[in-house]
Amino acid sequence: MKLVTRKMHFSTQGNSEIINLTNTVKKYLEGANLNSGLVNLFIPGATGGLTTMEYEPGLIDDFQQAFQRIAPEETEYLHNLTHEDKNAHSHIRASLVGPSLSIPFENATLQLGKWQQIVFIDFDNRPRKREVILQIIGEG
Amino acid sequence: MKLVTRKMHFSTQGNSEIINLTNTVKKYLEGANLNSGLVNLFIPGATGGLTTMEYEPGLIDDFQQAFQRIAPEETEYLHNLTHEDKNAHSHIRASLVGPSLSIPFENATLQLGKWQQIVFIDFDNRPRKREVILQIIGEG
Amino acid sequence: MKLVTRKMHFSTQGNSEIINLTNTVKKYLEGANLNSGLVNLFIPGATGGLTTMEYEPGLIDDFQQAFQRIAPEETEYLHNLTHEDKNAHSHIRASLVGPSLSIPFENATLQLGKWQQIVFIDFDNRPRKREVILQIIGEG
Repeated sequence: MKLVTRKMHFSTQGNSEIINLTNTVKKYLEGANLNSGLVNLFIPGATGGLTTMEYEPGLIDDFQQAFQRIAPEETEYLHNLTHEDKNAHSHIRASLVGPSLSIPFENATLQLGKWQQIVFIDFDNRPRKREVILQIIGEG
Repeated sequence: MKLVTRKMHFSTQGNSEIINLTNTVKKYLEGANLNSGLVNLFIPGATGGLTTMEYEPGLIDDFQQAFQRIAPEETEYLHNLTHEDKNAHSHIRASLVGPSLSIPFENATLQLGKWQQIVFIDFDNRPRKREVILQIIGEG
Repeated sequence: MKLVTRKMHFSTQGNSEIINLTNTVKKYLEGANLNSGLVNLFIPGATGGLTTMEYEPGLIDDFQQAFQRIAPEETEYLHNLTHEDKNAHSHIRASLVGPSLSIPFENATLQLGKWQQIVFIDFDNRPRKREVILQIIGEG
């Protein structure tokens, strides 16, 4: 068993922008020279989440509307009374979706479903520069 | 440290049917001949989720009602205007619950709570044949 | 690659009390004598969840209000008709947040964001004694 660590860097617009990370993860996996194992992704930050979805323009919009219903931006939040960033809703959405995700690979290939893509959702309410940490644990 | 990969196959009715995977995971873990480590589960698909719950008939129904409140089937979704499957709600619920789950084991025994079961929820709106990938990472 | 398993024990008040586990995880990580890898946390129990958040008094309250909106305590639940504990909402919230969490470390240091803390949320509706299982998988 070996461990390979890589970091992805990218910019986002925030406001629940959904970034498709699948091709970058595939590229790093190909470079890792491992046959089977687990890819673990983590966002070091409290206002972003990692999950999988069908990356389709209609659904991207539907997701953003759904998060607005689940944790609305405009509700009265204590965090927003004491913090200038007014992003309590970003925090709540991020903690619900979660900061980590694990995906298996075999024959050096991610075992995703046909329409399933790896996404980062930036719930913050402003543009951000983001880092996602990728760990590949597996055998050659 | 060793890696053992197994696949579970089963049929579901969709519509948030909740399938208890615990006994199948236990069976594969017993066959893996490892003492302690981590079991990782992953659903390759964008309309199913993995989590744990008390697998009790009342709660199963309560969960299905809760998902109907959190991401209703009937809301207007862009995905449903352009896709015949009309399952935007399935996608949103699946991404919220998440496609992966990790459970520790010791003495070749899953470290679940007394009432805690491993479940797959099929959020799609039609019967499906499903595969769940199980990876056991541990030492003998 | 090595595996180190530790257990955390603590008491909670329940009712969505949010416990900051970060310092305890750091302490165990320092004792594990590993340089880089993955920390996996798991709650053996069906009414608690693990995630990350900015551990700030206003946000803690905002989270508790948000869960009350997402899965209200007072809705009619079948579980509560047949079970004396009346904690269906606790189960639903716990399964949504999820029982497991993975965090990378490098140079024996957790790779958390600046404001990001590891938290356990006790969704049960009464005080509980809790155990969280910590597995450190990595290389020296």
